Amino acid sequence: MANPLLVEITRGGIVESGHRGALAVVDPEGRLVFALGDIERPIFPRSAVKGFQALPLIESGAADRFGLTDAELALACASHSGEEEHTKTAASMLAKAGRDETCLECGAHWPMLNQRAREAKGPNGDRALQALVAAGLKPSALHNNCSGKHAGFVCLAIATGHDPKGYIQPEHPTMREITAALQAMTGFDLAKATRGVDGCSIPTYAIPLRHLAAGFAKFASGVGLSPARAQAARRLRQAVAASPFHVAGTGRFDTVVMETLRERAFIKTGAEGVYCGALPELGYGIALKIDDGATRASETVMAALLARFLALGSEAKVVTERLDHRMANWNGIEVGRMRPVAALRG
Amino acid sequence: MANPLLVEITRGGIVESGHRGALAVVDPEGRLVFALGDIERPIFPRSAVKGFQALPLIESGAADRFGLTDAELALACASHSGEEEHTKTAASMLAKAGRDETCLECGAHWPMLNQRAREAKGPNGDRALQALVAAGLKPSALHNNCSGKHAGFVCLAIATGHDPKGYIQPEHPTMREITAALQAMTGFDLAKATRGVDGCSIPTYAIPLRHLAAGFAKFASGVGLSPARAQAARRLRQAVAASPFHVAGTGRFDTVVMETLRERAFIKTGAEGVYCGALPELGYGIALKIDDGATRASETVMAALLARFLALGSEAKVVTERLDHRMANWNGIEVGRMRPVAALRG
Repeated sequence: MANPLLVEITRGGIVESGHRGALAVVDPEGRLVFALGDIERPIFPRSAVKGFQALPLIESGAADRFGLTDAELALACASHSGEEEHTKTAASMLAKAGRDETCLECGAHWPMLNQRAREAKGPNGDRALQALVAAGLKPSALHNNCSGKHAGFVCLAIATGHDPKGYIQPEHPTMREITAALQAMTGFDLAKATRGVDGCSIPTYAIPLRHLAAGFAKFASGVGLSPARAQAARRLRQAVAASPFHVAGTGRFDTVVMETLRERAFIKTGAEGVYCGALPELGYGIALKIDDGATRASETVMAALLARFLALGSEAKVVTERLDHRMANWNGIEVGRMRPVAALRG
Repeated sequence: MANPLLVEITRGGIVESGHRGALAVVDPEGRLVFALGDIERPIFPRSAVKGFQALPLIESGAADRFGLTDAELALACASHSGEEEHTKTAASMLAKAGRDETCLECGAHWPMLNQRAREAKGPNGDRALQALVAAGLKPSALHNNCSGKHAGFVCLAIATGHDPKGYIQPEHPTMREITAALQAMTGFDLAKATRGVDGCSIPTYAIPLRHLAAGFAKFASGVGLSPARAQAARRLRQAVAASPFHVAGTGRFDTVVMETLRERAFIKTGAEGVYCGALPELGYGIALKIDDGATRASETVMAALLARFLALGSEAKVVTERLDHRMANWNGIEVGRMRPVAALRG
């Protein structure tokens, strides 16, 4: 059975392309509020669960011991664009733990290409890249979009008395603690789950959307969590709301939405069309996956869910314009629209 | 009815993402050789029919009158990456017609981001962009990926005694001639077709895959074409085979495949997951569209069809490696595979 269409792209008044997928929205009691498609099939949440993976950093006392700032905690939850402020912040986290980038095990990659930022700002959209090239440098592990998460893992390892070396391995005590947090939040038995390797070399576990959404409902509400874990979740939500630039980057959807909604929504994208979110005022958790992995579609579905469940005013145009997004060509002529299907708009 | 799955991406041994779509392969007599999915629904072929749109440039005598080279004819069929050689070639075409870039009506955009080229070559993959930025310049219409096609339109207009101004409008005599060629090749009544606006502002008409494939079978074989049109198709195929860099750019699939297969395959990508091709040794035409618009999937399906219908040796690794493509992360660790479904491999 194919998942339902969630997003349509039109041109000349007909549908040119469409994206299928599934989504779950769960309340603090773990009840399904809204769902479309197959939410029981395990999917790899990828970077969308970085918030869960950062919980031990706070619960262990590592964040306090090293005096991590909101920006640093936001970076621990981030898939950042490798802009200068991101790499500096990752380096600062490592320095506070007495380490440097040589202990990062995420691999290096060039700063993300950011077409939207370039369209908005011209070449400054890729300032990070230009600076590297101009200096004749190659990217380091600090530029990896996961460097903040990895720096957080290194801080956690050191604060809990472990050699960080090999922290990306499933059996390393630090990774075991992170995996335990993911299992506790989602209530899904990861020992029996399919395990893959993520882009940054840590394990990623296939988990049903229903369970991921239930985890984010706990993250949003604290219901069902120990006081220490509920407090850690709140601190991460507040840190990201205070520093949304650090969780993504210039022009990116996570960043522009949270710059507007602040603590009303914690949202986090993941590779291959995954998006998760927490809505604290309702205690709702959201998890969605686009079958084909397209980010344009996962962002559109997340926008539809934010608009459906939150009372949004004219200040939230970055969200509401995605409900009927005008697509223009290089001459500025409208060529079509991108929009969520009617079933999503509610 | 959903179209069938055509491409699967695995991770940890399970399917992480998948792409649905439809395809048609037609022989010189117009018979369907192979098809999957709905091939009767009209789709916008976008840039995949630039070869058809370039036929009048030759048939009118414009290409001879202005002494257009193979590289220039390839550029007339191109969605190029805006590299220096591309912009120079477009400027040369215009100069031969006594014009310059100010008469291009395609709009300007930054040179394409070319992640694969960057991965392969580091920052040189984006040399075109770096050069612009370093010089403090903005992109011009010459950088538009369609500038060669538009330069060809301008050459056609001038050679046939028309003012090129407004050539992007459906009613302009030059555009009418181009549309007539598209209609004749596909045998689809474009007066009744849904018309959209393409990225470069010219009209794009929704045409069924079956008709597009039939058109490329004529383009491959000459069967059913006038001698002049068959000769024009042959000249375009030979020009692209001689200058495959000009039809796309560094690291791009069109380019690397035709650098290897040369005249054995004329293939052309289009936006939103369209791909068309002509296989002269069989006289086959190919047309495919991925429902969600993903290029990674359209390339994989095209690779599968090339491997299915052509006898490929070890020299064609750029094609055959796509039949079971290894996906590695930033540490070079294999994280999964991307491959066409079994029904495609035949």
